[in-house]
Order: sequence, then C-alpha cells, then structure tokens
Amino acid sequence: MRALRLMDWNSEPELVDVPDPRPGPGQVVVRIGGAGACHSDLHLMHDFKAGQLPWEPPFTLGHENAGWVHELGDGVTGLTVGEPVAVYGPWGCGTCSRCRAGAETYCENLAAAPVPGGGGGLGLDGGMAEYLLVPAARHLVPLPDGLDPVTAAPLTDAALTSHHAVRRSWPKLPPGATALVIGVGGLGHMAVQILRATTAARIIAVDPRADALALARAADLTLTPDDDTADRVRAATGGRGADVVLDFVGSDATLALAARAVRTLGDLTIVGLGGGTLPVSFFGLPYEASVQTTYWGTRPELQEVLDLAARGLITPATTTFPLDRAVEAYRRLAAGDLTGRAVIVP
Amino acid sequence: MRALRLMDWNSEPELVDVPDPRPGPGQVVVRIGGAGACHSDLHLMHDFKAGQLPWEPPFTLGHENAGWVHELGDGVTGLTVGEPVAVYGPWGCGTCSRCRAGAETYCENLAAAPVPGGGGGLGLDGGMAEYLLVPAARHLVPLPDGLDPVTAAPLTDAALTSHHAVRRSWPKLPPGATALVIGVGGLGHMAVQILRATTAARIIAVDPRADALALARAADLTLTPDDDTADRVRAATGGRGADVVLDFVGSDATLALAARAVRTLGDLTIVGLGGGTLPVSFFGLPYEASVQTTYWGTRPELQEVLDLAARGLITPATTTFPLDRAVEAYRRLAAGDLTGRAVIVP
Amino acid sequence: MRALRLMDWNSEPELVDVPDPRPGPGQVVVRIGGAGACHSDLHLMHDFKAGQLPWEPPFTLGHENAGWVHELGDGVTGLTVGEPVAVYGPWGCGTCSRCRAGAETYCENLAAAPVPGGGGGLGLDGGMAEYLLVPAARHLVPLPDGLDPVTAAPLTDAALTSHHAVRRSWPKLPPGATALVIGVGGLGHMAVQILRATTAARIIAVDPRADALALARAADLTLTPDDDTADRVRAATGGRGADVVLDFVGSDATLALAARAVRTLGDLTIVGLGGGTLPVSFFGLPYEASVQTTYWGTRPELQEVLDLAARGLITPATTTFPLDRAVEAYRRLAAGDLTGRAVIVP
Amino acid sequence: MRALRLMDWNSEPELVDVPDPRPGPGQVVVRIGGAGACHSDLHLMHDFKAGQLPWEPPFTLGHENAGWVHELGDGVTGLTVGEPVAVYGPWGCGTCSRCRAGAETYCENLAAAPVPGGGGGLGLDGGMAEYLLVPAARHLVPLPDGLDPVTAAPLTDAALTSHHAVRRSWPKLPPGATALVIGVGGLGHMAVQILRATTAARIIAVDPRADALALARAADLTLTPDDDTADRVRAATGGRGADVVLDFVGSDATLALAARAVRTLGDLTIVGLGGGTLPVSFFGLPYEASVQTTYWGTRPELQEVLDLAARGLITPATTTFPLDRAVEAYRRLAAGDLTGRAVIVP
Repeated sequence: MRALRLMDWNSEPELVDVPDPRPGPGQVVVRIGGAGACHSDLHLMHDFKAGQLPWEPPFTLGHENAGWVHELGDGVTGLTVGEPVAVYGPWGCGTCSRCRAGAETYCENLAAAPVPGGGGGLGLDGGMAEYLLVPAARHLVPLPDGLDPVTAAPLTDAALTSHHAVRRSWPKLPPGATALVIGVGGLGHMAVQILRATTAARIIAVDPRADALALARAADLTLTPDDDTADRVRAATGGRGADVVLDFVGSDATLALAARAVRTLGDLTIVGLGGGTLPVSFFGLPYEASVQTTYWGTRPELQEVLDLAARGLITPATTTFPLDRAVEAYRRLAAGDLTGRAVIVP
Repeated sequence: MRALRLMDWNSEPELVDVPDPRPGPGQVVVRIGGAGACHSDLHLMHDFKAGQLPWEPPFTLGHENAGWVHELGDGVTGLTVGEPVAVYGPWGCGTCSRCRAGAETYCENLAAAPVPGGGGGLGLDGGMAEYLLVPAARHLVPLPDGLDPVTAAPLTDAALTSHHAVRRSWPKLPPGATALVIGVGGLGHMAVQILRATTAARIIAVDPRADALALARAADLTLTPDDDTADRVRAATGGRGADVVLDFVGSDATLALAARAVRTLGDLTIVGLGGGTLPVSFFGLPYEASVQTTYWGTRPELQEVLDLAARGLITPATTTFPLDRAVEAYRRLAAGDLTGRAVIVP
Repeated sequence: MRALRLMDWNSEPELVDVPDPRPGPGQVVVRIGGAGACHSDLHLMHDFKAGQLPWEPPFTLGHENAGWVHELGDGVTGLTVGEPVAVYGPWGCGTCSRCRAGAETYCENLAAAPVPGGGGGLGLDGGMAEYLLVPAARHLVPLPDGLDPVTAAPLTDAALTSHHAVRRSWPKLPPGATALVIGVGGLGHMAVQILRATTAARIIAVDPRADALALARAADLTLTPDDDTADRVRAATGGRGADVVLDFVGSDATLALAARAVRTLGDLTIVGLGGGTLPVSFFGLPYEASVQTTYWGTRPELQEVLDLAARGLITPATTTFPLDRAVEAYRRLAAGDLTGRAVIVP
Repeated sequence: MRALRLMDWNSEPELVDVPDPRPGPGQVVVRIGGAGACHSDLHLMHDFKAGQLPWEPPFTLGHENAGWVHELGDGVTGLTVGEPVAVYGPWGCGTCSRCRAGAETYCENLAAAPVPGGGGGLGLDGGMAEYLLVPAARHLVPLPDGLDPVTAAPLTDAALTSHHAVRRSWPKLPPGATALVIGVGGLGHMAVQILRATTAARIIAVDPRADALALARAADLTLTPDDDTADRVRAATGGRGADVVLDFVGSDATLALAARAVRTLGDLTIVGLGGGTLPVSFFGLPYEASVQTTYWGTRPELQEVLDLAARGLITPATTTFPLDRAVEAYRRLAAGDLTGRAVIVP
C-alpha cells in the first residue's frame, strides 16, 4: 500500500510503498477513512534531531485516525469487520493504573508500551496510509450513528484534547462562572463549543485574529488582546476574574494574561505548546488558583466527544485531501492557508 | 398593609389588614415585587388539621418571594435600600452544618430556627403582602442585572427545586448520558430547561398531557406514558436505561416506571409529592442505582438559578395577578386553568 | 489436574480430574496459590435449578483467586511467568463503558462477556484447582511486596466488595461524620477496618453475635440490635443519624434499622443478600438520603485493597484447607463453624 | 482590660489598658481562654511599613483564638453565654459566594468586610486580651466535648491551614498513593497527623532538622533533604512520584524539590510563605500536576479539625504563657526556642 512516511528528521514526508500490515494476536488492522494533519506533525518534520525523542524515523505519519475494522488478530472479541471506529491515539502499556483508567496518555510504564510516549504516527506507523495496524483492540471506539470517519478523525485529537481540558474543570463552571479561552484555533474553537454544550458558563474568547474570533460564535464575549485584556475580563466578571482559563497558546504573554485574569480557586490550564513559562509564587497568583498542563485525553472522553459530534453539538471544520496531496496539505497548514482541520482521505 | 392570610386550617385565605413589619436587629424588610402561588399552598388550605405540622395559622401566605430591600435592621451590612433581591425561602437555624453550607432546607437544629421546618409563608408571614419581614440578611440574594422580581419570585422554589435535583446528578450526565424527566409541570419543565442549559445529556420527557409535553421543547424525545414506556426508554438508550431519572410526580406508577427505566449506577430522584412508594430490594433495581428524595435547594444554587434566568437560559412561564385577585389565582391553580406560574404582584 | 467441580444444580461439588488448561491468544493460565470459599458458593450448590441463571454446571468452583502467572497466551504483554497476581473476578465484555472504567461487575454487554454476569467459578471454571484459565490479561493485578496469594485470595471478593461500598461514600465521611456497619461478618469486619484506615469517621458496628462484634475492634461503638438501636445511633450522633449506613445483612429488619438510623443527605447502601425490601417514599426516609445496592468492585479498587493489606492496614482472618478437604471447608462454612475466610490451597 | 497591642509598625507589642469591648447588634464578645502566638505575628512586628497592608496599627494581636461566649449583641441567636467556642479567624463580607460557602479567607468583597483581608489580630483587635469582640456570630464554632480553649486556639490556624491543604487533595490520596510533606514545623506536623487520620496514603516527610522529623512519627518515611531527595521519593513510589506534595516552606529550593517529586496528575500545594518562585512550563512539570497555593481554611473545615482533636486523632504540642509574658513568648518563638505552639492564656 501507499503510505506517507517521515523518512528522517528534518525532512518532508514521502509517499512510498510499504507492505500491507497484518494483525498479530490481539491486534486489529483498520482501513483508514480519514487521518488528520496536525500542527504537531510539522514539529516532527522540522524541529527534532536524532536522540531527542524516545523514537526515531522512519514511520508513517498520522495520529488522528478513524476508519473501519478491516482484519482482526487472534483472540480479538467485541469488534466486527466493517464496523466504523475511531482510533484512540496514545498507546500505553495497558496495565499501569493510568492505562487501566483509560488515560494511556499518562502511561507510567513506558518501557512496556509499544513505543514510549507515542503511538501510531508518533514513532510507530500512523494513519496516512490505506491501512493502520492497531496494537490492541482496546484502542478502537465504535463510531455512534451519524458520524463518518472523515469527521471523526480530527475529533480524536483536536476535540479530545479540548474536551479533556474543559471536562476536568466542570466542577468550577456552574451557572454564574466564567471560562476564558485564549487562542481560538483548531483546539480553542472546539473548546468554545464544548463549553457551550456541556456547561452554562459565560465564555470569553481572546485571539488577535478576527477570523479566529469568528469561529467563537458561541462565546458571550470576544476580545482582541491588548494591555487591558485582563482588566476587561475582570470587569466582565464583577471583578472576580475567570473561574477557568484555558490557554491554547502557552506563550509567556498568554500565560501572564491567564495569571492576571484567573479567579481565586480557579483553574489555569496550559494546553498550548507555545514554550512559555509562568513564574508561580505565593502572592503572584490569586489564592488557590491551580496551574497545570493537560495533554490529549482519555478513552472514555473520546467516546463523549464522538457523542457530542454525532448529535451536532460540536462541529469541527475540516478540509479533505487525497493521500497523494497530503504533502500539499501540510504545506498549506504550515502557511496558515487552511480552513479548519486538513483530513487525509486515502 | 393588606395581606393574604390563611386564618385557619381547612379554609380559603383572606385579604386582611395587618401592621407593616419593622425589622429587629439583623432583620430586613423587603418590599414585595412578586410572590408565587404554589401548588403546595393548596395543600395548606385544604389538607391539614391542628397539630399535624409544627406550626399553625394564622400567617400570610407566599413562600416564593422577590422584591426590593426596604428597611435594614440594626447591624445589617452588605445590603442597600432599594436593591432588588430574591428571598431564599427555607429559614433554618443558621448555625448547624447544613445551614452553614447554605442548605437550610435540611436544617438539623429545628428548635433554633424561626419556625421549625418552615419559613415565610410556611408558618411565618410570607410574601403575599406589600412587605415581608425576613429574619436574617443571609436569606437575601441580590438579583443579577436583567432580572425583575416578578420573574424572580417563582425561581426561588419551582426552578430552585428542579435545579437542585438536576445539579446533584451532574457527575452522572456527561455527553452520552440520558436524563428522564417524569412529569413536565411547573417544576418538570424547568428541569428540562436546566438540563439542556447545564449538560449535553439526552433528555427524554414523559407526561400524559400533550400541552405539558409542548413545554418540553428542549427534550430530545417526548413520550406519553403507557405500558411500554420503560422499554422505549431502554430502546432509546441502547438498552442501558436512563442515567438519571427525575420523578416530579412521585406516584406508585411513576416510581415503578422510574425503577424500570434507570441504569446501573444511575440516580432515581423523587421530587414529586405524589404519595407513592417504591419497594427497594437487592435484585429489584439495577445495581447501584441510587434512590433518594430532594427537597427545595441551597442558597448558592439560588444564585445559580437567578443567573440562568438573567441570561435567558431558563424562562419560566408566569401569569401575574394583583393582590386583591390572589384568591382567584389559587382557584384557577386548583382548577388547572393557568398558563405557567401565578405570581401575585402587590 | 484435580478440580473441585459443581457437576449439577442441587448437589455437592466433587473432586475430579480435568485436563490442564492452556491459554489461547490474549489469555493467561494462573497457578493457584489460594482460592476462597465464599458463602455465595453455598447458594450455587443448593438454591438454583436449570434455567434460573444464565449459565449451568458443570464448572469448577472458586471465584476468589490469587496465585502466580504460569503460562502466557499469544500476544500477552506486561506479565512475567512466576509473577504473583490476584485475579479480578467479574469478567465482562471488556469494551462497554462500564468495563472500560474497570467496573466489569456492571458490564452492559453481557452477550459479549465470556459468560453473562459471571466469571471463573461462576459459570466458567474457577480457582479450586491447580490451574485457572483467565480469559484476558487485564484481569490480573500484580501482588504488591509482602502479600502472598493465600492472604490475597479472599481480598478479591470479601475485601473488594466492602471497599467499594465504603469508597463510594468517602465524600460523606469527613471528620465528624459517622458510619454505621450492620453485620460484622466476613465483609462487615473488612468494612470496619477499611473505614478506620481510610477515613476519620466515627464507626458504629451492630451485630447480635458477641464474637462478631469482637472482630469490630476498630469501631468506636458496638451495639447489639434491639428496638432502641436506631435511637442509640441518633443519640450517639447528636440526633443527626449516621452519614453512611452499610447493611451487610440486607433483611427487612436491618433495612428498617438502616432507614431509621440514616441522616439527611446520607447513604444507605445494601450489600447483604438477605432478601429484604425497604419501602421508599417521600416522607419515609430523611431528605435526600440515598438508597442503593453495591455489587463486588472495580479493578482499580482491587489494587487499592491489595495495597491496604500489604501495608497491614487491613488483616482478613483466614483458615487454610488443602484441595482434598475443600468439601469439608464448605460444610464448616455452612455450619458457621469457621474462623474467618476458608482459603483452599491446592 | 489588659491587651497586648501592636502600637506601630516595626515595634514590639505592648501590654496596655483598653476598655472592655461591648457587642453591637449581631456581635458577640468572647472571654479568651487561649490565643496562639503565630510566626506571622513576627512578620507584623518587623516586616511592614505604613501603606503596605490595607490596615494599620494600633490593634491587639492574636488571630488564633478560643474561649467562652461572654456577651451576646442584639439579635444573636443560637449561642449561650458560657458556651466554649473557637473563633473562625478570617472575617469576610459574609455575603459574597466565597463567604456564603464558609471560605471567608477568600472573600471577594473586601470593601464590605470588617477590615479588608484581615480579622481579629490582623488589623482589628485580636485575642491577646481578656475579651475579644467578634463582629458576627457566624464566626463562632462550638467546641466539641473534651476540647478546651487552650488546646483549641492553635487549631484555628495551624491545624486548619494544614487540614485545608490536605483535604482538597483527598481525591488524589486513595490507598496506594503517596503524600510528601516538606517542612515538619507547626503546620507540617499537623499535616502528617491529619494525613494519617483521614487517608491510607503513604506519608513521606522531609526536613533538615532531626527534632522536626521526630514530630513526624506517623510518617512512613522521613528524609533529610539533599541532592537526591527527589530521586529517593521516586524510588519509594515505584518511580511514579508523590501524588500530593505539600510544601510548608515555600522557598525556591523546596519548590524545586516539589516539582521534581510530584507525579503526573498530582497536586503541588504551596502553603509556606518562604518567598520562593516555581517556574511552570509545559515540559517543566509532570503532565497535569496542579500547582496552587492555599491560605487558611473554611469554617466547616474548622469544625472538622476540632472534631479530630476532640477524638485525639491530632494532638498539637503547645506551651502556655500568661498574658504578661506574651512578649517573652514571641521572643522565644523568634529564637526558635519553643516546643510546639505558644498559647497565651489571659
């Protein structure tokens, strides 16, 4: 079959021929319906050298995948050939307490995982090919009625990551509370929709780009960042600040804004990989405001995200490309010349 | 001032003259903007005799109240004369652990409460008069912008009770879960709206009355009850049953439906005073489905309900009556001849 | 190998020769170190007839098992031959949302489970033999240092069931709260120890048997049941009642006691299979007291229970028997002539 | 009466005569049984100048107070003259959502509080006198049987602050989890005892002082800090790190240790005022480890702490001084020459 493979660090991926995968015991081969092209793939192409990550090229790209069950390995039960499925992307050891709770993204026994801290498209062969070998049946989540693999593919990362960040803060978002979303890109616009669907919180969205703010239709208030942004958030919340701040940028500047805008007892969650640092000290943040990162999400949360999309409560924007135009999709992604998520359809 | 008073058990209330109340230390007099006529008032008029309740007539009716701060007793701080407020209805001792947490509805030191298990309109003078004496400033919650006392009054009971019942079950209502609302009356239609505003759960509403189901516009599915209702709920939930069942009727029949429709690990909450009994045994209900009543709500929850209404996320239907037509309002309530909640506007 | 098998309903089990099990793909064979003899096995021997349960004899008894990994099927990773393990007993489909969360005891896709609503010793061959075939590696939990299979075996049911019932009520058991344990048998005495180890709640234990109460050493108060028991619980709790009542008997009488002793907003949890019924109505129980059953526990909870035992925070009493005296163990269990749990050591 | 007053910034307090306080409406005068001398009082004496805090001297010191109800202002109910009480120290507005939930330490309407961000002994007259004027009855919590005011006084701050920090992390401390306590001083040794009483977590305590570690008797492991401390914590936790780190020092060095020792999804809570800063960035801490401060505690938590002490589950060490030796107590506190908390007994 044809596959879009990263052959080496600091290179563009190449479309090459590889053997079709066959499932070993407990494994499943999925025929790919859609594979999302993620901004983090651009980092893989350009920003690493040998030895920096626990795994090396070559491997097929594509860590946001959905399709149909194609072939079942020995001992696999509970799945039917032809059934549409989303692929849970982080592949952990499966037996540590994090994995048992469905949070393989935080696997604590990396040596026993198929690849340490990665998965398909991240060290192992991913979904930008006709078929994907999934190392354990537990990573497959059946698609609910009304959801096709092309739509589902980007949900497995962009929507799942946003949902995880929102969901963990639900207890701080009862009616009367405010959520501040910094950065309304691929993840941020999902977060706005998920907040609207799952809470009655007021939503404030901040982004310097007018077209990004246009994606935050469900927000109660949109702001273009300037020196007064934190003050305007405080003014809009009776002086209290935002109960939950989700920073999808993660630069020094956005983290500083987040710290000035968050409420006592609030959450300040860093999702974006902007490379910023927030100095935390006793009097530098409101009392008991919690600062944390989040990374991807859990398998039960993936089921929830699929349900939200199947019911039309979240609607990711996507543009599809055939596999032989995948390189073009990444180039347009790098150039910022895409509406919504690029999904490769083999 | 004029006040609508229940003069004796088993009688209709009378509009009589009483002295204007004056606040003692720590107390506040509220000028009433609206006082809701509740179905439970009809029970007070018709269904009790001396000695059955821990308090006796005469007292002014009206336990759903909102208005404006009129006069502050000595030592009251944090309130301004003229400020619009909702009145938190259940008046407890204020110092037991339930009261300190804002749940005076479950006060555990009844002997120290102004009246045991009651409040204004329930043993003490209520809001169907020009002025209401509130025994402690803590019972007053400022109205958010955009909410007037006439709209706010019924929120303090009908919406608060529904919100409390829904809110305690939030952890069981993530995306993919289902809530079943039995009885779409004054409380039930609020519950449907609150579920829609605060969760992404599927909502199924059951009521034999077509006009009641019409109030459940936000539901995903409406059902007229018959022998197959529980089966239809199971069919609509992939066989699992409803994660949360809220029974706003509480008869033997609705409780039996609730028990057959609820999911393992779900909640079956009895809000309605229909007098029914549910026999609970080890194999009579799905594993670990929790059965409980709820009664009214907490003061923080009242703040949340007011916020939902001020933002237009819940919209109770109301019909207003002047004080001298309050008896007529109750008669129409008893006859089922009212659209939405009757609110008396002195 | 030799195995203690239930050959038919309404019969005593027989020690017979059967072939040694071999693991298929994804399966594991465990060499048994200990298999607990549970009271529910007596029900299997005596109280059922063909068609009542979703599975039929013959099968080897023993659903509380621990031992050492003996042979790994194809595709199994993360386990080492010789490693000591406890066997998580309820074997579900593995893919429904309950199973994915580790609560296979509440599996919702029974048709896809190895046996509907059962496991090893419950429809499938259990651990009263030299070897046990475990159908999926996920059911094995490594034993922490300091815990041997004989001690661990009864933890997988008696302690796990108690822990699950206690753990779900932790939020209602802060300092100042009271837990009432009704029935201090095999499960109840574990519950007292788990309450003491994991909370600072006051513990009241009720049992008519003096030797049972002696096992409740960690309780603050022990009571022999009579007509005043509920009043004494209320007196010991400032009139409030017990925040959490765990009924390990489950008869009409104990359920009635539980209902009279529980506090508003409390938990009344039915663990015992005593066949009783509690009529629940709006004014029949304190406001918002939750009534529910619990059944067994989750795999993460099994890890927790093993940790408690390895650290000496819980110490189940056990008596060991060789396999050829297993029938005697059951006879003594039926006669009430055992100290602690009988564990069969093949 | 005699009172120990801070007359000016940068001065030692003086024992002077002041008029006995009388309660206004809603207020209560407490006869002091004990007033704790806190390290933060030394900061008040030495480290501030005019304009730095929202309040100024002169005022009577003592913010950890317990005693007996002496005189009730008009309108106060639910308290009896002579009743022993602890004084909840942070005095907020009483009506914002934080105050209504009992967390006046995080009051959001400082302008409406008796003094902004303070209380008795912090801007207003405190408890180092025969009598204390308490501005609202809600600040008084009755002492449970068996607890005297001298023992109770330091519980209102040292134990309450520790309890709040521990309690908020309970969900992360099931059996198998580990809590790391950095700094075993007045607060830290309370935290160790509270962890032991309320959880089954493993406890590791770190302190450079041998006598401090001796106070951590309930810990499973005590460590003297050096370059390998974080590694030793990881080694003791199977490589995972501590689920909860409570830093009672708060210096750059201890925060760096905390960050290296904490587990993914853990809590890193800064309680100590050591003036340190922790730089937080996406890859600088384990995934989703939450960093936050905590300050004092809530009124319901004070009730819980009193219960723990009354039952003997926590035992703060105290040394008593008469009022005319209070200055000496502070000098010995400054010199580090005290065993346990100094409590002034007027």
